[in-house]
Amino acid sequence: MRNEVGGQRLGAGASSLEPAASVSDLSERELIGRIHARLPPAPDWMVVGVGDDAAVVEAARNRLEVLSVDALVEGVHFDRAFTPPAAIGHRALAVNVSDLAAMGASPRLALLSLAMPGTFPLQDFDQMIESLTSLAARWRMTIAGGNLTRIDGPLVLDVTVVGTVKRRQVLTRSGARPGDDLYVTGSIGAAAAGLQMLRAGNLFTAEDAPSAVETCIGRYLFPEPRIRIGTLLGRNRAATACMDLSDGLGDAVHQLAEASGIGAAIDADALPIDPDARRWFDAHGQDATDASIAGGDDYELLIAVRPRLRRRLAAAERHGDAPLTRIGSCTTGRALVVRQGGLERPLPRGFTHFR
Amino acid sequence: MRNEVGGQRLGAGASSLEPAASVSDLSERELIGRIHARLPPAPDWMVVGVGDDAAVVEAARNRLEVLSVDALVEGVHFDRAFTPPAAIGHRALAVNVSDLAAMGASPRLALLSLAMPGTFPLQDFDQMIESLTSLAARWRMTIAGGNLTRIDGPLVLDVTVVGTVKRRQVLTRSGARPGDDLYVTGSIGAAAAGLQMLRAGNLFTAEDAPSAVETCIGRYLFPEPRIRIGTLLGRNRAATACMDLSDGLGDAVHQLAEASGIGAAIDADALPIDPDARRWFDAHGQDATDASIAGGDDYELLIAVRPRLRRRLAAAERHGDAPLTRIGSCTTGRALVVRQGGLERPLPRGFTHFR
Repeated sequence: MRNEVGGQRLGAGASSLEPAASVSDLSERELIGRIHARLPPAPDWMVVGVGDDAAVVEAARNRLEVLSVDALVEGVHFDRAFTPPAAIGHRALAVNVSDLAAMGASPRLALLSLAMPGTFPLQDFDQMIESLTSLAARWRMTIAGGNLTRIDGPLVLDVTVVGTVKRRQVLTRSGARPGDDLYVTGSIGAAAAGLQMLRAGNLFTAEDAPSAVETCIGRYLFPEPRIRIGTLLGRNRAATACMDLSDGLGDAVHQLAEASGIGAAIDADALPIDPDARRWFDAHGQDATDASIAGGDDYELLIAVRPRLRRRLAAAERHGDAPLTRIGSCTTGRALVVRQGGLERPLPRGFTHFR
Repeated sequence: MRNEVGGQRLGAGASSLEPAASVSDLSERELIGRIHARLPPAPDWMVVGVGDDAAVVEAARNRLEVLSVDALVEGVHFDRAFTPPAAIGHRALAVNVSDLAAMGASPRLALLSLAMPGTFPLQDFDQMIESLTSLAARWRMTIAGGNLTRIDGPLVLDVTVVGTVKRRQVLTRSGARPGDDLYVTGSIGAAAAGLQMLRAGNLFTAEDAPSAVETCIGRYLFPEPRIRIGTLLGRNRAATACMDLSDGLGDAVHQLAEASGIGAAIDADALPIDPDARRWFDAHGQDATDASIAGGDDYELLIAVRPRLRRRLAAAERHGDAPLTRIGSCTTGRALVVRQGGLERPLPRGFTHFR
């Protein structure tokens, strides 16, 4: 429990004798400078970069552009009490890149819009930016621009991403047909269990960092979007439909089925529920299947595949970054059901922001 | 004072017997549906539109892409007490499109990310979206996607815009040279005066709407980005540098001069200060020159022009949407001064969000 990544401002550091600096101690220009200093040299296709009214870029040749925007709002998408700044920065970019992966697209650039309370600690700002920019570098994405503003309220990170994909390799939600098999990448439930662990008072510590992605808490805080398998599935045209699980498997099946005009039957016993998550749900009186179906934040991919293209799927799996598990199939009609122990019940949905 | 555009929720309407609906009475999907219903058919270059994980578009041929993001935060950029929802929607798009105009780019598409308190009235949501989407249609922009989320705090609108421009027609901040003349479009000071009028208790009424753009309050609430003159200046290569006045003329001159490595001398008596704004500042004991230099929200363009290209500038003005006024010139050295009545003083700056 030493070295809490998110806990320096609680007073453990050497700087506790003087008040910690906050973002309001710096000018907008100085804050932008701190971001700029962390960016690698701009690529050739960047004609005008950070510092003008707008960024100017060359489009990628013979490719379509894929655009997405997603916001992380403190108090809704994360709680600063147990989410270290590095995780906030990581998630802000990862949740967007996951949308690109779900379209079969390769990430290219991001625009970062931050609304920060004046009291936001400068050290947290630096850690958040460091995490986000190093992740961008790992995925060869360019931070092409952004916006900084004050807010009298919670921290808000709005990230817009642009990726590219060849026309014949676009994955959408709407191509699934009755008879297609449904697969999911990796495992589910871990992020939802991790969030419960954090809320129950477990803390993420610096010592956890190396193995972070293998723990439930790590899966919640530092999701790894499935870029590699997403682009492979687009390239070898194995999938008829694809989307990510940002709001949970139940929500994803609902949306993919609606967009494709099909029904779906999910086999509960086949679900790749994370073993640690299952133990946590069991120990806390929750149905592990329902909790894993309804729980969000996994950022795995849901994929529909014609049975005759199963070999292509296997090829994508061999070269990809995550195992694939068959979890059910697409049906005629519009019913969405879970099959378990010979019984059928309606598929739980998941999270919604408004009603 | 009847028919206050922003005042329906104060109880004048027929629905005052039942509690007004708020965005939290609808699902995220229903809210997205209300936006979608207002969008015109998507253009041919839109391969996948609203409703998938991301938008997929064809890039414009032989053109560079210009990207910008800007946020409007309630309590920082607008006050809901006196800013009607239609103005919030208008400004959210206009302030972004102004950045495109300053680069010489034509607007193409926008992504809209909204963080809304659950209590945000549904009627306000509808008016805000109606204003934003009709403005997008007027500028032939496509709303390509977006994100809706709840926030326990102020309303936040984050808009990302993408425009296009030919490579040789890009306008930047950095091309001004000593000896260039400085011009500004339209007039300055009106938006700052309008904001003061609103704060002093003047209200914007529905009857003001037709002539809104000609009043100070209208200039503040419904700014008109200088798209036409911006693209004309890019095309005829009259300008050596350009930027918009979002944070005021003083700030713009500082930034353009720094990016270009020059100084500047502004002639106070030449400034096209809006006559109504001047009267307001005079009547309230403020120096009209300083208030108009420091005041933000005008969304006019600052333009640097080689004296020998003055004819091209005149041609752009003839076909453009705003008059141009010469307000000073670029100088060697780095001093930024205002000249008035034979005296020189440092150029005031303007607004900054943080320190």
